[in-house]
Amino acid sequence: MPNPIPQTMSAVLLTGHGGLDRLVYRDDVPVPRPEAGQVLVQVTATAKNNTDRKAREGHYSTRDDDEAVSFAIGGKPTLTFPRIQGADVVGTVAAVGDGMNPARLGERGLLDFNIYGTGRRDINLVPDYFGHGADGGFAEYVVVPDDQFHAVTDPTLADAELAALGMCSYQTAYHMLTAADIHPGEHVLITGASGGVGTALIQLCRIIGAIPYASSTPAKAPALCELGAQAVFDRRDTRDFVARTAAATGGVPFDAVMDLVGGASTRRFIEAMTFDMVARTTYPRLSIAGASESNVSEIPWTLIYLYQVRIVGVSHGTRAEAEQLVHWIRAGRLRPVLQAAFPLSAIHDCERYFVDRAAGHLGKVVVVPDAQWATHGAPFALA
Amino acid sequence: MPNPIPQTMSAVLLTGHGGLDRLVYRDDVPVPRPEAGQVLVQVTATAKNNTDRKAREGHYSTRDDDEAVSFAIGGKPTLTFPRIQGADVVGTVAAVGDGMNPARLGERGLLDFNIYGTGRRDINLVPDYFGHGADGGFAEYVVVPDDQFHAVTDPTLADAELAALGMCSYQTAYHMLTAADIHPGEHVLITGASGGVGTALIQLCRIIGAIPYASSTPAKAPALCELGAQAVFDRRDTRDFVARTAAATGGVPFDAVMDLVGGASTRRFIEAMTFDMVARTTYPRLSIAGASESNVSEIPWTLIYLYQVRIVGVSHGTRAEAEQLVHWIRAGRLRPVLQAAFPLSAIHDCERYFVDRAAGHLGKVVVVPDAQWATHGAPFALA
Repeated sequence: MPNPIPQTMSAVLLTGHGGLDRLVYRDDVPVPRPEAGQVLVQVTATAKNNTDRKAREGHYSTRDDDEAVSFAIGGKPTLTFPRIQGADVVGTVAAVGDGMNPARLGERGLLDFNIYGTGRRDINLVPDYFGHGADGGFAEYVVVPDDQFHAVTDPTLADAELAALGMCSYQTAYHMLTAADIHPGEHVLITGASGGVGTALIQLCRIIGAIPYASSTPAKAPALCELGAQAVFDRRDTRDFVARTAAATGGVPFDAVMDLVGGASTRRFIEAMTFDMVARTTYPRLSIAGASESNVSEIPWTLIYLYQVRIVGVSHGTRAEAEQLVHWIRAGRLRPVLQAAFPLSAIHDCERYFVDRAAGHLGKVVVVPDAQWATHGAPFALA
Repeated sequence: MPNPIPQTMSAVLLTGHGGLDRLVYRDDVPVPRPEAGQVLVQVTATAKNNTDRKAREGHYSTRDDDEAVSFAIGGKPTLTFPRIQGADVVGTVAAVGDGMNPARLGERGLLDFNIYGTGRRDINLVPDYFGHGADGGFAEYVVVPDDQFHAVTDPTLADAELAALGMCSYQTAYHMLTAADIHPGEHVLITGASGGVGTALIQLCRIIGAIPYASSTPAKAPALCELGAQAVFDRRDTRDFVARTAAATGGVPFDAVMDLVGGASTRRFIEAMTFDMVARTTYPRLSIAGASESNVSEIPWTLIYLYQVRIVGVSHGTRAEAEQLVHWIRAGRLRPVLQAAFPLSAIHDCERYFVDRAAGHLGKVVVVPDAQWATHGAPFALA
């Protein structure tokens, strides 16, 4: 049986948009109570994602509305303060809401981080997520929907490793592939390949039988190849990009590009799909789920319509895709890329490390409540 | 039986890239001979398209290659000189190639203008067309593939009217709709609605059960509404665009936009799809097949990926779509929008009229060989 549930807990509160000082570690935060349809999870590990930083800094403004500095896809921002961030939660069921199955008590699982707007399994048009529109896992406890806390019992996978397989990166990556209709045997370029979405894309391409190529830095190439990349292109070398990629693919254009970079690079990525249209049997497809280089890509419209390019904007994925990913996790098909764990009380150190870590490092950073540190964090602490 | 076929014919030769002086009317051009798989068509009417002007002026440069000033999707330009332009050809079968069905002699038909690169019916990745990669219909005779000259016998449709239903506009329009997966009941905005593709889009939306809205000029609104447009927005009025469109749709966002304009307008068109994501049940879709305003659209990438916009570049369509359109023409479902006919020898006047015609005029301009003028051109001459 789980331990008795306390009245208060340790948690990191985001108190407003701004710098690290807006992240405040407290030990007097009320423990939430599960309602019907929910379970209370005692957190053992929560992975960090770039989206937490962008939400804190207010980078999600997408309109000419200065107020809308967070996700506001549903019409108004859902990020209110104080908020507990942290999307990719792993832990054990500590209590269940009215009518929920008590047999789940003590069960280990992974949270599907989405706040789904509808019951539809095939589409998710108003993305929001735990840690943004509701409290997340940078805390000792979190309340989540019963049907989105997926049991994963595999004892060879540590809790911190399971958190590193979290949906925030993997579901986005998988939806980038499904939205672009990627088929077995297709050559797929992945840009910004060393991040959480990028490393997920490499693995998922291999699972579905596609051939992943990565754009990243030479220092990260060995690790990316070990994950499954067929070849790695130096992202800083912009000369003869098409020729260099063609040399790697055996002369054929990429069938599709999964782009997390944007900016001036996007045109090169498209040209690496369109330089030989006679060799193609499908439309060139560009999935975009980020724009780390620049938020504006100046692409000649003639390049898009004469070469029949299809550009697919991706933000999160669907219930069906989350469940498919859990299936692959349970089957041992996905490999965690975990770099380091930090105690929850060291959240500022963790944030600084996440942003500043040296080139050559890739993988997820995981946050573990201090009370769980010895068991779930210490084995993955930085040397 | 058709008349005996002469050795030479009248035709307009495009002698190089440049101005109107590159279009030369001659009466000593050899009549081509059909080979196996081909028929010889005696031309009665050929519709003009903007693509002819762009090809003449050399506007199809899409690479950093100054030589590639024409369609070069297959890797190298296929436009060589002299070339007879004119894509949307109507006429009668005057001779058939070896092994072709002689029963076709005298049959009236419409050319599917594509030069298809493969036998595939479902995709057309290397667009090229008669009048560009091979000789077209600004002549008395033209040789075309037997299986792309589609019989249309409806006697209520004059030859010039049938030419006004030509594939260059209609197939592009139809592919814009199919590529964006338009369904019955969907609200579809059509920009640049008074052109050949735009008027085709309005009619095709109604045929498939979608609700078309047009962006154009007030002078053209009555004609566009008569063709089927639910409402017409003044394209010069950029203020409160989203609010004005929402007032017309009953408050819901457009499901999709068929964009022929590009440039700074594109962001407004996207916002008219994304202003209320909770009301949506499908991804916002933007089909683009032209960019009359500007070839570069500066769209924030966050707008594309957070709102999950899908952008589809369209150039021509597929064999299956051409055959569907012919089916609708034979069934009397499409209405020609014909404005004027010119004799072939007046090609310069025709070109100037095509470019300069006053606001308020819409519809196709058709060219008729001088020998056919009395029967096929004169009834549609300008007053």
